[in-house]
Amino acid sequence: MELTLDRIYQATHLLKDCVRKTDIIPSALVSFNKNLHFKAENLQVTGSFKVRGAYFKIAMLPPEEREKGVIACSAGNHAQGVALSAARTGIDATIFIPSIAPLSKIEATRQLGARVELVDGVYDDAYKAAIAFQKESGGVFIHPFDDIDVIAGQGTIGIEILEQINGLEAVVVPIGGGGLISGVAFAVKKLNPQCKVYGVQAAGAGSMYQSFENNERVELSRLSTFADGIAVKSPGKTTFEICRQYVDEIVTVSDDETATAILTLMEQQKLVAEGAGAVAVAAVMFGKLPFLKDKKTCAIVSGGNIDVNILSRVISRGLLTTGRLSELKIQMLDKPGQLKEVSAIIADIGANVIKVMHNTGGENTDINGCYLHISMETKNKAHFCEVKRAIQNAGYRIVEEC
Amino acid sequence: MELTLDRIYQATHLLKDCVRKTDIIPSALVSFNKNLHFKAENLQVTGSFKVRGAYFKIAMLPPEEREKGVIACSAGNHAQGVALSAARTGIDATIFIPSIAPLSKIEATRQLGARVELVDGVYDDAYKAAIAFQKESGGVFIHPFDDIDVIAGQGTIGIEILEQINGLEAVVVPIGGGGLISGVAFAVKKLNPQCKVYGVQAAGAGSMYQSFENNERVELSRLSTFADGIAVKSPGKTTFEICRQYVDEIVTVSDDETATAILTLMEQQKLVAEGAGAVAVAAVMFGKLPFLKDKKTCAIVSGGNIDVNILSRVISRGLLTTGRLSELKIQMLDKPGQLKEVSAIIADIGANVIKVMHNTGGENTDINGCYLHISMETKNKAHFCEVKRAIQNAGYRIVEEC
Repeated sequence: MELTLDRIYQATHLLKDCVRKTDIIPSALVSFNKNLHFKAENLQVTGSFKVRGAYFKIAMLPPEEREKGVIACSAGNHAQGVALSAARTGIDATIFIPSIAPLSKIEATRQLGARVELVDGVYDDAYKAAIAFQKESGGVFIHPFDDIDVIAGQGTIGIEILEQINGLEAVVVPIGGGGLISGVAFAVKKLNPQCKVYGVQAAGAGSMYQSFENNERVELSRLSTFADGIAVKSPGKTTFEICRQYVDEIVTVSDDETATAILTLMEQQKLVAEGAGAVAVAAVMFGKLPFLKDKKTCAIVSGGNIDVNILSRVISRGLLTTGRLSELKIQMLDKPGQLKEVSAIIADIGANVIKVMHNTGGENTDINGCYLHISMETKNKAHFCEVKRAIQNAGYRIVEEC
Repeated sequence: MELTLDRIYQATHLLKDCVRKTDIIPSALVSFNKNLHFKAENLQVTGSFKVRGAYFKIAMLPPEEREKGVIACSAGNHAQGVALSAARTGIDATIFIPSIAPLSKIEATRQLGARVELVDGVYDDAYKAAIAFQKESGGVFIHPFDDIDVIAGQGTIGIEILEQINGLEAVVVPIGGGGLISGVAFAVKKLNPQCKVYGVQAAGAGSMYQSFENNERVELSRLSTFADGIAVKSPGKTTFEICRQYVDEIVTVSDDETATAILTLMEQQKLVAEGAGAVAVAAVMFGKLPFLKDKKTCAIVSGGNIDVNILSRVISRGLLTTGRLSELKIQMLDKPGQLKEVSAIIADIGANVIKVMHNTGGENTDINGCYLHISMETKNKAHFCEVKRAIQNAGYRIVEEC
């Protein structure tokens, strides 16, 4: 079977029963691009676009295939997409999840009514177990990306974007295995060949990027990114072929750039995005697609299922790098009144102390010396420098800072 | 001038030039109410609904009043709303902001093109300065809530909600000074008198709640809530009258309930809400409106302008209360190998150590005793208990936990 625009329109029609037509949100990041828009698939049911492909695939199964149930393997968004789609169509779903997956994602999948099989190990182990179960049960394995109907389901986003934004000139799309961008690029190029389609991968998981460079499918030996939703070792056969034909260019972003994009989306747009969901925004913010300038652009924010522990670290890191959270280690004499003096200096400048640790010294200090570690909220880097200067002017030595 | 439905429809028409018709997002919080929807005004331009009232008020000013410019006093959302509205209509804006306001809000207001006057002190001081400047300059003071046109602008949300949700049975609305709920309640009750309208205040700033109880406007001597967007000492004259006529009931929520609602909105809905923006959601989550049950309900998420430092604390607190971040203080003997043993126990159970502090003991320990403070990521409270039990079973004494 070939991918056709017909098939994607059919998906658009069927998806009405299960999926939201998510909003287009104008970007507040005007310094990067005055004509930027976000397609907020993080606000999709299940928190990610993945439900589109899964639902269309499952809804199109003939009755004899439905009976034996569906099977999937995923630690994240695909698991929830398949679970919800199966529940809505009244089909049994068995989802294999590696035991290292966050408990919250396992629970979310169970709550959507799927049978969850936890497999000791990583994704590859769970995948093997899923395939073995498929052979035994005869159920239908729902591939997370390398399937024409799954791709057609994701392609509905392309149709929606063109309908929602007049005169669109470019779409920027996250890439893991390539299912999302294949569907979107196909739909967009068939309807409006002038519109550019760019893909973005995490630098530590650039399988499609390297496959483009090598002009053949590459398998990575190792993945290194916190954007787990797009950490895929090799693009699909079908998705690679579609991307070669319809995608204009692929770029990569670092994890630090992605983390900054997540923080920016929270602060400026009030949207929670996961790593995979923020890479397209990171590419625009960090000038990876400089020719876009102020072209009318849509970046797809593909999902928002980020573990809140990780989100908390992303925020802390962002606060540190922008000078809004600051840490100082100050060498002091171990005599009364010094802590009081330093505290007064900091308070006068308007910084807000949130943590203090006072230690007697290590090997490099005098016998009566000690260290004061202070964490404080500051307004920005300049404000932090002001605090540092005042402490130094009062005669203290700053040993470490960040 | 009286508030009329006509006026609100006029606002709807004018606001098209400046304001987004924000999305209705179905709630994933099905355990509280299966028919709950969110009106996402945190995704409004400037991150809050306030721009609606400000824009309509300013757009309706006659030419002779426009010339002298507009004046406002606010530390937050109203400041940005007035600044953007004035810029769009080509009018000068002077905004008085108390110097204690977060730098990010001051900067955002400046970037929207307004002249910012920082006033030493709190809101009341800035308000006095604004009124003095108004007398001197003859410009128009834009009240944040007690003004018919401002109320009419906020009322456009009521019209949108009824248009976006068929068969709506109840609306739940945050209350500070009462501008938002006055507009929404008026529009909703005029168009659909059967639909209930409930207001929610922070317990530490319940000025409208207490005014309802006392059947007259009450002025609070003190405000105590982190939801700064609704920390208002006294309701407006006009808003109090409109609320008396059209609001069915007012309830209050605690700051802890609001913080939990913020975390839940982030995790379940991928939305960033500020304290004021989350109180209506908190009221539904914590059963303050038990008669709503599964009634078709819309909770207004009125804004998302939360300082990221505060957001970070809200997350940490939420992680601690749900057992996903845990801290232990363990008493140990100061001899080699103990840290290694405890680390191994924690790792075996699958908890993730994120911070360790190892201190020689205080006055209550043996001379060769010491304390180990450990912070770790755990899956939930049960998982944390498992860690504790294993450490105790290995013979260590846990001195403190949280």
